Amino acid sequence: MYAAMGALGLAPAEQEKDFVAPRPGDFSLRGKGAAKVVILGAGVAGLTAAYELGKAGYDCTLLEARQKTGGRSLTLRGGDRLTELNGQSQEVKFGEGVYFNAGPGRIAPWMVTLDYCRELGVPIETFVNNNAAAYVHTGGQTVRARTARADMYGYVAELLAKATHAGALDRAITKGDQERLLDFLRRFGDLGPKLEYEGSDRRGFVKYPALDDGTPVDAPGTLHRVLAAGTGRAITNDFGYEQATPMFQPIGGMDAIVAKLTEAVGRDRIKTGAKVTKITNLADGVEVVWDGGSIKADYCIAALPPHILAKIPHNLGAQVTTVLRTPVPVAAGKIGLEYGRRWWELEDRIYGGVTETDLDITHIWYPSHGYHSERGLLVGYYNTERNAELYAALAPEDRRRRALTQGKKIHGDKYRQNLLSSVSIAWDRQEHIQGGWVRWPSFDSSFTFLQRPAGRVYFAGDWLTHLIAWQAGAMESARGAVTQLHQRVLQSP
Amino acid sequence: MYAAMGALGLAPAEQEKDFVAPRPGDFSLRGKGAAKVVILGAGVAGLTAAYELGKAGYDCTLLEARQKTGGRSLTLRGGDRLTELNGQSQEVKFGEGVYFNAGPGRIAPWMVTLDYCRELGVPIETFVNNNAAAYVHTGGQTVRARTARADMYGYVAELLAKATHAGALDRAITKGDQERLLDFLRRFGDLGPKLEYEGSDRRGFVKYPALDDGTPVDAPGTLHRVLAAGTGRAITNDFGYEQATPMFQPIGGMDAIVAKLTEAVGRDRIKTGAKVTKITNLADGVEVVWDGGSIKADYCIAALPPHILAKIPHNLGAQVTTVLRTPVPVAAGKIGLEYGRRWWELEDRIYGGVTETDLDITHIWYPSHGYHSERGLLVGYYNTERNAELYAALAPEDRRRRALTQGKKIHGDKYRQNLLSSVSIAWDRQEHIQGGWVRWPSFDSSFTFLQRPAGRVYFAGDWLTHLIAWQAGAMESARGAVTQLHQRVLQSP
Repeated sequence: MYAAMGALGLAPAEQEKDFVAPRPGDFSLRGKGAAKVVILGAGVAGLTAAYELGKAGYDCTLLEARQKTGGRSLTLRGGDRLTELNGQSQEVKFGEGVYFNAGPGRIAPWMVTLDYCRELGVPIETFVNNNAAAYVHTGGQTVRARTARADMYGYVAELLAKATHAGALDRAITKGDQERLLDFLRRFGDLGPKLEYEGSDRRGFVKYPALDDGTPVDAPGTLHRVLAAGTGRAITNDFGYEQATPMFQPIGGMDAIVAKLTEAVGRDRIKTGAKVTKITNLADGVEVVWDGGSIKADYCIAALPPHILAKIPHNLGAQVTTVLRTPVPVAAGKIGLEYGRRWWELEDRIYGGVTETDLDITHIWYPSHGYHSERGLLVGYYNTERNAELYAALAPEDRRRRALTQGKKIHGDKYRQNLLSSVSIAWDRQEHIQGGWVRWPSFDSSFTFLQRPAGRVYFAGDWLTHLIAWQAGAMESARGAVTQLHQRVLQSP
Repeated sequence: MYAAMGALGLAPAEQEKDFVAPRPGDFSLRGKGAAKVVILGAGVAGLTAAYELGKAGYDCTLLEARQKTGGRSLTLRGGDRLTELNGQSQEVKFGEGVYFNAGPGRIAPWMVTLDYCRELGVPIETFVNNNAAAYVHTGGQTVRARTARADMYGYVAELLAKATHAGALDRAITKGDQERLLDFLRRFGDLGPKLEYEGSDRRGFVKYPALDDGTPVDAPGTLHRVLAAGTGRAITNDFGYEQATPMFQPIGGMDAIVAKLTEAVGRDRIKTGAKVTKITNLADGVEVVWDGGSIKADYCIAALPPHILAKIPHNLGAQVTTVLRTPVPVAAGKIGLEYGRRWWELEDRIYGGVTETDLDITHIWYPSHGYHSERGLLVGYYNTERNAELYAALAPEDRRRRALTQGKKIHGDKYRQNLLSSVSIAWDRQEHIQGGWVRWPSFDSSFTFLQRPAGRVYFAGDWLTHLIAWQAGAMESARGAVTQLHQRVLQSP
């Protein structure tokens, strides 16, 4: 069918979705009844599983070790308190309307997350993931993203145009295609009449055109300097399907999704502060013990991080434990910096987007909402692995100090002025989570092993998908587990 | 100072703004009083001039030939009526909350327009001007923008990598720079280990990764086919400083700016339906006659389109008339298509952005707001010059029919289904405007001539700037006229 549509010149179809939620009618047709399911973890995967099973009347109970639902999909606001495993604690002092998505912060348009936003009535807005006005800071130098891009594209176009003219492509492509290529390169690199890159108004201006034609920023450096600046990673950051522009966010904070899921599932079905201590597959069901009691159900969906789940005694077999221990937790950290004045909008003309750096802060995110408000919150670092571990090891006030010192290299003194408050999260120090996400050494049979149940225990989480670290992964995994479980219930004798 | 900041690696400053609004204190210091000013046209230029002069207490009167203020900054909603010069008239039938920016629809972040939004309290939101999920339709074929981009970049990177390896750059750049270049090309084109472009997951998927690693769209065509597709214009569309992502729009419709300006100026100062018929420079002032009376003032700011102004009898000299006739009106047209179902979000996963085409519709805009609402409005064409003239010559129902026929080539039958209503505008057929904007044959002394007053008559409008067709141009021009006029008043004996 795709081929046929292609032949007609029509838009290629995309995003086949084959999930069908369980329905009450599924049972009545077959004379079956919904089962009882205990779900371990009320993060996005656990909540999604309970939500989908609930549509068909499954009797779900969720056990959540933390004090609130949502897991890593955590949005912090004034009045919240954030405690770390070593006991250090931060009080969130943000003003009215200011929030910090400490976990996931953006949604790609093809992701199932948007379907849940629509279904649950979570209003969304555009998240700016690529901003020509944001900066690239590499090798101690700061340029606008638009400038870095114009220079790299300009020189690449010039080099290929020259090579084409010199006959370097004569064996590879026809003269006609060379002409088409040169047409593209002229446009792509904004080349001059001699097919040379002489700078471009795409680089930006000190004073933008108005009554006169403006004052451009200084002329581009040599090709050598442009290559040495190493802006490549930064300017290709949104080329992949996960990060391509535009992206989206719930209005008012990412936890709006979790809040709506929690509400739809029913708070009475969720036991918070309930830490699971034992999982036992029985002949006719599953028994789960937690620190406040035990529960017997027909099935279980274990929607905890694998390294947490691996520590819980169970009778699911040694291979389950081995596989749960296979994925490696990855550290991730973020700091929210609340300012009393949106200087990045007023002075830098940066409205949303990301500054890419080669510093240990990696990125600075500017808010894509509340433009022109008085207050605003920057994400002062969003880093992973060693950089995240470095910041995690610091006390919150030292993390802030370091983040400000780094940000000052880009934005100058104003980065330290008007700062009202800050909160930082080190995900590896969050109780019952202990990591930003996981990395599989390879997506081999270990990975697929836990996509199937161990007895009556199903597994779910972003870590069981190719969308690790995305809420969409948690949701897709939950859908997978729900589909299998429901089929089994329908087919059981 | 910029050099010094650069040396420190700090962000380059940008966007110097030197406008200082007139203040009441300017007069008291000099023992002068504010003057009386008549402003011709209550479009964005005229309103901005009145607003800025009003800050210092100037007594402004605006004469507007149309029935409402704003000129081309026109937003249409249900209940509005749009009449064209030949008498044909459209009733706007959009549902609650649906609007159509028939004139300007987006604002670049560096533009002064955003400063006015902030100052006037017009809330803004992100306008998606580049969407990887939107389409490129060229030569009868439709591909996602992400696919078109991945293929062009992939092949360009491969060609330059091969030329580099073949020694074609040996004279131009050092081996070290060649290595840096290859690093960049690998990333830029997502090249394989042999530095060949073998396709890329950046091209998109029929089924995106989730439990498995997804089903990619079909493999890329040959370099010849990719070059022949001619997607270059489309995929470089947002490279310039005017169109670079992100852009912005007022929440609820572009006319929010005009509405706030009108309110700030004071409706009692604006005579609508007042067509100017004569402008006379006097020794001690200016006299303006309109079809309902005449007014004498100390100064005049003529903020009408040049080709309209050129037709009004005046005593400003022959050169003024000659220059007013120099810029050439450019036709521009748009159609708003209101649908009862946002199929582009639900089925195509397009949330905002623009599909670029080589059809006479040129672009299709998807709304960047109200995501997941029931209704939504597409801009079914936004074209200029000959394409705009072609549509302008049709009756509104034929414009719609043609737009739907063209859009169907991209989106298939659904493009004609669920259509609730439509409205089209042909700017060259709007009374007292008669053009989308103008084009100067060259920005020579004719252009700058009218940046200075003719006697006591000043000129203002986007057409007197390098930001033609942008509200920012109208605003910058108004600021320029206000600055000159105010200086003159302060310095007059």
